[in-house]
Parts: sequence; C-alpha cells; structure tokens
Amino acid sequence: MAGNTFGKILQLTSFGESHGKAIGGVLDGFPAGIPVDLAFIQHELDRRRPGQSKLVSARKEPDKVELLSGVYEGYSTGSPIAFLVWNKDHKPGDYDHLKENFRPSHADYVYHEKYGHRDHRGGGRSSARETVARVVAGSLAQMLLHETGISITSYVSAIGDIAVRENYTELDLSETDESPVRCPEKGISEKMVQLIEKTAKNGDTLGGKITCIVKNVAAGLGEPVFDKLHADLAKAMMSINAVKGFEIGSGFAGASMLGSEHNDLFREKDGKIYTQTNFSGGVQGGISNGMDIYFTIAFKPVATLMKDQKTVNAKGEEVTLKGKGRHDVCVVPRAVPIVDAMAALVIADHYLRNKTSKF
Amino acid sequence: MAGNTFGKILQLTSFGESHGKAIGGVLDGFPAGIPVDLAFIQHELDRRRPGQSKLVSARKEPDKVELLSGVYEGYSTGSPIAFLVWNKDHKPGDYDHLKENFRPSHADYVYHEKYGHRDHRGGGRSSARETVARVVAGSLAQMLLHETGISITSYVSAIGDIAVRENYTELDLSETDESPVRCPEKGISEKMVQLIEKTAKNGDTLGGKITCIVKNVAAGLGEPVFDKLHADLAKAMMSINAVKGFEIGSGFAGASMLGSEHNDLFREKDGKIYTQTNFSGGVQGGISNGMDIYFTIAFKPVATLMKDQKTVNAKGEEVTLKGKGRHDVCVVPRAVPIVDAMAALVIADHYLRNKTSKF
Amino acid sequence: MAGNTFGKILQLTSFGESHGKAIGGVLDGFPAGIPVDLAFIQHELDRRRPGQSKLVSARKEPDKVELLSGVYEGYSTGSPIAFLVWNKDHKPGDYDHLKENFRPSHADYVYHEKYGHRDHRGGGRSSARETVARVVAGSLAQMLLHETGISITSYVSAIGDIAVRENYTELDLSETDESPVRCPEKGISEKMVQLIEKTAKNGDTLGGKITCIVKNVAAGLGEPVFDKLHADLAKAMMSINAVKGFEIGSGFAGASMLGSEHNDLFREKDGKIYTQTNFSGGVQGGISNGMDIYFTIAFKPVATLMKDQKTVNAKGEEVTLKGKGRHDVCVVPRAVPIVDAMAALVIADHYLRNKTSKF
Amino acid sequence: MAGNTFGKILQLTSFGESHGKAIGGVLDGFPAGIPVDLAFIQHELDRRRPGQSKLVSARKEPDKVELLSGVYEGYSTGSPIAFLVWNKDHKPGDYDHLKENFRPSHADYVYHEKYGHRDHRGGGRSSARETVARVVAGSLAQMLLHETGISITSYVSAIGDIAVRENYTELDLSETDESPVRCPEKGISEKMVQLIEKTAKNGDTLGGKITCIVKNVAAGLGEPVFDKLHADLAKAMMSINAVKGFEIGSGFAGASMLGSEHNDLFREKDGKIYTQTNFSGGVQGGISNGMDIYFTIAFKPVATLMKDQKTVNAKGEEVTLKGKGRHDVCVVPRAVPIVDAMAALVIADHYLRNKTSKF
Repeated sequence: MAGNTFGKILQLTSFGESHGKAIGGVLDGFPAGIPVDLAFIQHELDRRRPGQSKLVSARKEPDKVELLSGVYEGYSTGSPIAFLVWNKDHKPGDYDHLKENFRPSHADYVYHEKYGHRDHRGGGRSSARETVARVVAGSLAQMLLHETGISITSYVSAIGDIAVRENYTELDLSETDESPVRCPEKGISEKMVQLIEKTAKNGDTLGGKITCIVKNVAAGLGEPVFDKLHADLAKAMMSINAVKGFEIGSGFAGASMLGSEHNDLFREKDGKIYTQTNFSGGVQGGISNGMDIYFTIAFKPVATLMKDQKTVNAKGEEVTLKGKGRHDVCVVPRAVPIVDAMAALVIADHYLRNKTSKF
Repeated sequence: MAGNTFGKILQLTSFGESHGKAIGGVLDGFPAGIPVDLAFIQHELDRRRPGQSKLVSARKEPDKVELLSGVYEGYSTGSPIAFLVWNKDHKPGDYDHLKENFRPSHADYVYHEKYGHRDHRGGGRSSARETVARVVAGSLAQMLLHETGISITSYVSAIGDIAVRENYTELDLSETDESPVRCPEKGISEKMVQLIEKTAKNGDTLGGKITCIVKNVAAGLGEPVFDKLHADLAKAMMSINAVKGFEIGSGFAGASMLGSEHNDLFREKDGKIYTQTNFSGGVQGGISNGMDIYFTIAFKPVATLMKDQKTVNAKGEEVTLKGKGRHDVCVVPRAVPIVDAMAALVIADHYLRNKTSKF
Repeated sequence: MAGNTFGKILQLTSFGESHGKAIGGVLDGFPAGIPVDLAFIQHELDRRRPGQSKLVSARKEPDKVELLSGVYEGYSTGSPIAFLVWNKDHKPGDYDHLKENFRPSHADYVYHEKYGHRDHRGGGRSSARETVARVVAGSLAQMLLHETGISITSYVSAIGDIAVRENYTELDLSETDESPVRCPEKGISEKMVQLIEKTAKNGDTLGGKITCIVKNVAAGLGEPVFDKLHADLAKAMMSINAVKGFEIGSGFAGASMLGSEHNDLFREKDGKIYTQTNFSGGVQGGISNGMDIYFTIAFKPVATLMKDQKTVNAKGEEVTLKGKGRHDVCVVPRAVPIVDAMAALVIADHYLRNKTSKF
Repeated sequence: MAGNTFGKILQLTSFGESHGKAIGGVLDGFPAGIPVDLAFIQHELDRRRPGQSKLVSARKEPDKVELLSGVYEGYSTGSPIAFLVWNKDHKPGDYDHLKENFRPSHADYVYHEKYGHRDHRGGGRSSARETVARVVAGSLAQMLLHETGISITSYVSAIGDIAVRENYTELDLSETDESPVRCPEKGISEKMVQLIEKTAKNGDTLGGKITCIVKNVAAGLGEPVFDKLHADLAKAMMSINAVKGFEIGSGFAGASMLGSEHNDLFREKDGKIYTQTNFSGGVQGGISNGMDIYFTIAFKPVATLMKDQKTVNAKGEEVTLKGKGRHDVCVVPRAVPIVDAMAALVIADHYLRNKTSKF
C-alpha cells in the first residue's frame, strides 16, 4: 500500500517526479463554499521556489499553479480540487551519469532497492520538488482555516549552529519574510547569512530548524488514542524531505524538567480557561487545549555538495561524484512555506474530523 | 473520524478506559501461519505494568491477557486477533472528587471540551493504561518480525538530567532489563535510581528519554512521500502518552552539522552495500536502507504530583488538588515495552506494505 | 490488507469465530452524548438468534451482549465501544470430520486456499454467527439515527418462489414480527410457512428476499463519485453471508422501462421538493433526495442440507457428507435484523460524513 | 469525508467536472515494473466515448489521455500514475438555463442540497463524463492483471426488454465489439438496434444490462468479512452512473432455487479442485474459488429525454424542460468498458491485498 495520500477527511493525494511532466495533486474532502484565492496559492508557491534571493539558489523556475477542478466561480464546490504545476523541459541525457550511481544521503539507493525500476532524473519522486503539491494543498487548507480564525506562522529558528535566542512570543513574526533567511530575529538573521556565505565558499552545506506557531485553535482538535494532534503534526513534519526531528512544547528540554516546573496550571479569566504556562505546546492528551500550538523541527544539511564525494554504483563499484556548482547551501528558509502547508493540512483535517466528536 | 485504529495493513483497533470493564484491541491483517506465543505477550505486558520494582510503583495489577479469536492450535489464522485484559473492580465513588476538576497537564479539560460527556475515572480513555493494548498487539507484531529476523530493542537513555554517555553501539543492550530503570549503562543507571529516590522525597516527578534500535531491516521499507518509515515511527511514538519529541539518526544535532560531515558515504563489502556512517538512522528518503534504524524520544515528567496544586474546575472556579501518595515518580522505564510495541507495529505494517511495491 | 472493518467515520471492526471464545467488535467514531439502550441491542440480537420459532431452528443460544467500553452512565463518550457475546463451550472433536472436507457452497475450500491454516469448527470466521457483531453495532447505529428521526424497517419479501405481491407502501410493516417468517403480507406469510415445512420434510433448503425501507433521510447523504449512498448499501448487503443480489428503487425491472416512465418528476408542496414517483429509490446521483430509500436483496438457499452430498477433501478425494438433522431450512427471516443493522451502519456513517460537505 | 478515492492498495483518486478544464485521476499503489501500453488505454477510452456509431451518439470528443507521472521508459515506477483528459472548451452561457432548474432523475437537486454551491454545467461532477478517469485507471489495472493471466470481458446482455437468451458460456465473446450495441448474440443484437431506433423516434430512452466475466482468478482473492470480493464488485458497479442493480452467480434467480439444486458440488480433476456447477459465480464466502466470476448489472434508462418534461426550479416553481435533440437513447453499450475498468480495479486491488494473507 503506497503512501501518497495524506489526511483522513481532508485528503491530499500527490503525484509527480522532479523531471517528469508535472507535479500536482488532488485535494479531496475540501468543503463546498470556501472562497478560493489563486493569488494566495501562487504567493505561497513563490515563497517555496528557488531563486528568491542570491542566498538560496541561482536557478529560476516559474512554478505557476493551475487548478483543474473543484472550484467554480471563485468558491469550492465540495468536489476534489485537482491542481498541477508543469515542469520545465529537461534535456534527455542530462542525468544519465546518475542513472547507476547512488548519491550519498540521497534516496537513489533505496528507490533502486524498493522499486527496481525508477526515474532517476533529478531524484525523481524523491526530489524535494514534490513539496510543490504540499504547498498548493496547504494553501487551500489555510483558506479553510482562515474562515475559522486559525492562523499559522513559521520561521527559521536555526541555521547550522546559529540559533534564535528569543522565545517565539518575544519575536515579531510579521518580520519573518523581511529576512533573506526567514529569521525574524534581526541580528541572528545577519549571522545566518554570513554563515551561509562562508559555507558556500567551502563547497559545503547546512541544515537548521524551523519553528511553527498555530494560533486560535479552539480546544477539542485531535483524535486519541493514535491520531493525537501532535502525533499527526509529527508525521506531517517528518514526511518533509531532510527532517530528522520534531518536538512540541517543551520538547526534548521537557525531559529534564521536574513535574512541578512543567505542569501547566489551569487558570480562568473572563469565563475562559487557559494555562499559566504552555509547556504542553497547546496540546494535552493529544487534543488542542486552546493555547498556542508551537513546535520545532530539525533539518539535516543538504546532501548535494559542491565537493567531490566517493560512493558506489549499482554494481557496488566505487565511483566519485563530482561536486555540483549551483545547488542550495541551505534549504531551510525555502522550507518555511512547506511547514506552514503541512501544518495547515493537519489542523484543517482535524478541524473537520472534530465535527462528529459529539452529537 | 475517531483515531483508535493504527496501521494500514496490520491494523490495531484499541478500546477501553482506565476504570471501565476491560482494555483490549483487535489486530487485523495479521497473516495466517505465524506461531503465537502467549507467554511472550504476557512477558511484555509484565514489563509494562506497575509494581515491577520499588522504584516505579507500589501498586500491583495482574493484567493477564486473554486472546479471543484469530489464533487456532497455536498459529494465527489470518482472521482478526481480539484480545483483552480485564480491569480490576474499582469502588464507585473513588474518583468523584475529580469529576469536575481539571488536573494540570492531564487530559481532563480537553476531553470535557471535546466530548462533553466523559468517563473521568482514572483519566478514562486518556489514561496510560490504554497502552496495554499497544503492548499486546506489538508483541504479536514482534512474532511476525521474528520470522523475518528483524529485532527491536529499546532502553532508557535519560531520566531527568542524567543521560547515558555512550552511543548505543557501545552498550550491551542485553543488560537493559537488569537495571531497575532499564538503562544498560551501569553507572548511569545507578545515578538515575538515586535521582528518582531524591525526587520522590520531594513529592516531585521526572521525565526522560528512550532510545530504540531496530536491526536487520532490509532495504525497502517505507512508503513515500507521506508514509515515510520514520514519519510513521514518529507518529507512533508521539501517540504514546507524555511523549514530547522524536528524533531519528542525527536528529536535532544533525541540524548543526555540515553536509560533508553528515553525508553517509556508500561502501560495498562482500556484495552488500552499506554506509560508512549512519547519521541517517537507517532511513533515507523515507525508506529503510539496510542499516540499523535508531531513534530517541523525549517524555515529559509525570503530571500527577505528590504535592498540592491549584487548578480550576468545570465552572472555572479555583480549586486545590491534593497530592497523591503512590503514583509513579517516573514512568519512562515502564514505557520501554510500549516503545518496542509501537516500533514493532510500524515495522511489521511496512514489511507487509512493501510486499506490493514491485511486481 | 484484511477486511474486518466497515465504515469510514463510524467504523465497526469485527472479530470472532463460530466456535472460538467470543464474537464481538469495536465501534469507533460513535459520537459522544447518545443515549445507549442495552435492552434494544439485546432485542435485536434476540431477533437474529436461532430458536425463535419452530420454523427457523431447534437450537437455543443465549447470546447476551456485554459492553466493555465507550459508554458511561448510559451515554456514549466518543471513545470506542467494544462489545462481545461469549460463545458456548463446544466439545473438542465435534467438528473433526469436517477438518479436511470441503462442504459444497461453503467457504471451507476458499479459506483453506487463502489462509493455509484455519479454524474449521462450525465454519470458523466464515460462519454466519459473525453477524452477531453486525447486529450489536447496527443497533448502536440505530440509536444514533433515532436521534435524527431516521428509521429503518426490513421484511421478508420472498421465500423460495413465494413472494409478496404488494409494494411496501401498501403493507403494514408494524406487523412484520407477528409473522413467523417476518413477512407482513398475511396470506403470503402462511404460504411461506407451508413451503418451509414441506421443504424441511424433503431435507432441502430455501433462499428468499428481504426488502428494506429507510425513512426520513434528508437530502444530502452519499459521497460521489465512488461512495455513493446506494453503492455503500450494496456493499454492506452483499457482505452478508448468502446474499447474491442487490437492487435499489426500480432495480432490475428498471432496465426494461422507458425513460419517460422511469423519470421521477420533481414537484413542490408546502415549500418541500419531492418526486412524483420514486423509481430512484430515494437516491439520485448517489445522494439521498429526501424520499424513502428502499432496496431488495436476494439470498441463496442454505448450503447445509439434511441430505447426503458428494464432495472432495483437501487431498482431492471424493467423500460423502452426511446430512445434518437440525439446521435451518431457511435463514432469511433471521437475516432481517442483520439487514436492518447493516443499513443503519451505512446510513449513520453517511450522516456523519455529510457533516463536512459544506462550510 | 468525501468519496473520490476507490480501492485499498490500488487506489484511484478521481477528479474533474463535465465542463471544467479536465477529467483525470491519480492511481496510487500500482507496483513498479509493469509494462504500460498507452495505446491500450486510448483504445479503452475510445470504446467509452460518444460518436462510435450512429446509434449511440452524434457528438465527437477526442478524449486523448495524457500520463503525467509514475511511468518511465515504458514501465511503471511504483510512484503514483497521474493522468488527465482535457475537456473541450465550452461556451459560457450554454448551460445557464439549467443553473436553477432540477432535471428529473438527474443529480442537480441533490448536489444543490448537499453542497450549496455547485458547477451545474453539463451536470458538473455528477456527469457520466467522470467515468473517463475510471476507464484510464481500469486499463492500467488490466495491464497488471494481464501479467497474472486474469482476463475481464463484458457485454450487453439486455437493452430495454430485449435480452440475450444464452448463458455467457454459449456465446462467442470475441464478437462483442462487432455488434454496434456490444451484444455478442447476433439476432438479439439486431433486435436491440431496432428497438433503439424506434425509441429514438419517440424521443424516449432505454436502459439495459451488462454481464461481466472474469476468468483465471486463482482461489483466494477477497477479504472477509466486509470486503468480500463480490461485495467490492457490487460497490464498484453500483457506483457507476445509472446502475440500479447487481447480481452475482445465480443472483436473484438463486433466491427461488432449492439448496439441492443450488449447491456447487466440488470435484477434482488432474489435481485441481473445481465445482460441478457455478451458481456461486466464482466467489464463495467472499473469496474467489478459481471458477469464472460472472455478474450482471442493471442500468436505468437515460434521464435526458428528447421530450418536454415538467419539473421544479430551486425556488420550487414549476418549469418545463425542453427536450434535447442529440442525447444518447441508450448508454449501455458505451458502459461496457466502464464495467471492465471497475472490475479490473477491484480484482487488481484484491490481487495485491491477498499478497499478505498468509506468511
């Protein structure tokens, strides 16, 4: 059973290879009557694509989204929303040297082992270009959430060993996109830029972290015991290329706190119950509790280096991969809209799932 | 859509409340012809239950598993395997004081908000007693994996701020259960015991970490792009009560490594391809690559304190919860078989899913 | 991927073999706050069990249902509702003669081929005793539907070649259970009884038909293009043992009508739109249109005869099966509550699914 | 939860409206390594489209399929196969008169009620044009089945009150496409043509029946207790527009047979077990038994008449729909490849599902 569908009520089925004809998807379960803003989808796609600044890439792809169904006269109809982004034409032969070589820390080898026959060009299905479909579908999910008042904001909280020092509550997140690395803490953003430039000169690459905040989620979203809200968020995030870790609320740091420090005491104000602290990260027992949901994810460094690397080919023979000159040094800033998108898909799905929890 | 079913081909549907009649589940999709060892299931259940040592609890529950279907003459039949563990009788009234009070960092409030009507006794469905069903089903999954040579081992890698210093490859994991806290690094285990004892005296509680290693998984398990093997592992782990973080391979530390440090170079020996390092944690592109799979999860400290805490009731009024005398200070050691079980369910499910990836 | 779960939001997972320890199930996705009437469940189970009249069986099984979870103080909690019915003890050895013989038109052979290892006793998982779980879960679904005003009524519309002559709209369906064969047309009921008695004397068996009517379903239930309401009803009905056909509205007769005869013209009265005829059977384009939903299903005759039959064993050798003395001649009357139950599961599931079709 | 995905391991997600940009789908779970023959897909699509003979339609649509992903160098890669067929441009305004009017026995009214906002042009999502996606995906499924030796053949077994007299075993099914109505019994085919011509003159329409035969299915496909092979076939067929009934094997006629007539006695020849008769229709206990699978489905007459009809609009006002001049009198012949396609999707899905039934 393949794994290209995400969500239970709001379901994204995604398709497409890096160098195939198109990347796209079908979003089913999107309720009728939601205003659909094509410009917003395109805006999110533009945030994802390479070539946004001199830092993140030198290539330029148009990536214009086309909706094929499910929207009529500006509103969703309840029918599946299909969409696609055409790939540019690629010269056949450009990728022939990679047909039999397994790039280190790429998916070439495992696809070869799992499927036998694969489209190796540009990584095929394993390319991060696949996330185009996530961003389109996630933008649609954000439109649904917009109707409910829920908002989602992500930002880069670390690149390499440069990390933001402030808690998200201290930052002005409206500044995120002002930063070339999508880090809203100004001094830190500058250091990140310097680190990327230095690393680029060495032909090396970087990873980092993204923090995501979801606001205005009412208490009640999440489906115990397995489809806990944060469990579905974790899965969504870990399914993004290069992600190696997920933590919500206190996260790994919470493991060394005392219960008396960590417990979020309930308080009441103006008839509304809230917690005095929010180490839970807005989710308790797998269900949203009305507080901000916040989580952080870790990205490993980019696997394609601008240096030579030794690896093996399909026959097990040692081969040397030549360094490539124009790849991203760090993709974390471009991953911000992908994190937004996946978070939106999870929250919107659970919003719909929660419609039948009580009679 | 509720969330009490886990897995795609091997599917566990779980049921039961802490103080209801029974906890149990149905495991469907378990292939016919697998030898079923009831003693092994009971052994795993015994590892989970309270009362194993003076450290982890003072209560004693029998927790005898009963199989109701799907096994005949010692072998699975391919029909669903239902099982249950009866709960002990509880005196009505014992939990009446909690009916309207929301314990801090428990799920009382969110269940109240989500469902309106709930069984509050002992936390009802939100109690960690629910994991009994996971352990039984996971033990069955381990029997399936046993036939394939795959093995799963977990251990406690931190309690509070006491953490193992060695990598798992340096530890003798067969010693894990010799330690009262299931930590195979002897000196560290002793310090953990001391920390628990000290914390107990203060009426406080602790969290910690568990590391899990899965060996002998052939290359090919995992279903991109959403049901990546580590994404499903993350979801499985985050769905366990009190878990706040998940990391695989290099994890959060990987975010600050350089690409040239982090890339796992392919090598060949005796016709077998392997990687020189394993920062990937045995999974690349969401698919197992034949190396050890290892990951670590973080548990927050136990929410039930042996100290008074101020909270609110369903009317929003401030109330004081009295400290309880006999709760676990730290549940992490007892969670080891739960981690094993959830890992086994994920790996076995993907083992079966992979049967149809190529013709 | 096994097939013991039914429904998308309201999901029944069923388990149990004819001569195993118990038959039961878990109903997940049942909303919180529905009053649960155990007596009604038992009443429906009693309608299903053998021994209700001298016609349908001579055995007597108690079949007392036990709820294990998901209901607290008389109301559903939104957690999974697990239930079971214990099987009577059976003497080991009673079924040994069937271990290797394949009874004609039973599932012995196909289970042997599919699973290799099987519980042959009394048909194991393929026994109609499995429908106990359907009736319990369906009774719960009926309680949910009761809150919405939807009602479901089935009756026997044919046994062998004796069929009711009237359309359901001409019959008094409240009389159904007065008839020993659950046929509300009095003269026809008597002829059916005579046919069963005559057939019993010959050691032979009978099939028949059941017609089901669902009233007060508002327009809107059903999920095109695959999960059309009548497609899900068809699947539900065809999954009942011995069912060979399903038709809705005009059904097979509709195939020879002209469009001008068959079209259901829309009319309006008191602000409500209805159709002048109802050849559609209450479903158009896969979605309920507010009219009565009615459908008919065909049951083949009972496969266990009271005559000797020649068949083969697992080695392919010819063997003679001795006729059994006390089996049902016709199970169709006992299947009425099963049809009610499966219809209720489908309608309730679609009722919940429709909660998210528009914003 | 919407219903545009079909299948459990082999999953088709379909999209598109009659007069939207495109009709298409994504087929996920298709194993890697299957040769993909685009010409065969196009051939099946051509069988479905209008304009094949003067009888079935006067319009002409190109309906060229385009594969977007999942196939590389002529073989499937195991990644999702996306495909689409562009719709012709339609003049805006052509369908404005239908925006508010509910055509009798069409889905206009129920879509209006269910979704509120809908694309009414040409029936939107409820149009039979949606079956384009089924035919493409079903053709792919047939390629998979081709590798296993399984074949599927359907033919028209009745139009209006003209029905084939012979059992399928007596007919030469290779002649089906020679007949303009896809009926392989020559004299009957001619009578059907005459009936269609006569009915066309009266401005009326016809329904009919299709019989489908699946050969060379080994024993073992089908997943009790709910996903029985014939239950999934029934659902698949009932989900096709205009289908009102389904029967397998003896079907409705079986309800009036005696058990001693109906039982399929097992016999053995050359080490192979078979049944002497095949009233079961190749499925017993929900699992294929190695015999031919055959079933028949009933189609109601076309709802669009070439006569005026009275109906109501969205305000409940009576309006008269003018007869249209160029619609199909009978769509049953064009539905033959759709039945083939849906049967192939079900059988291929169960073929894959059965890969994990025993260890």
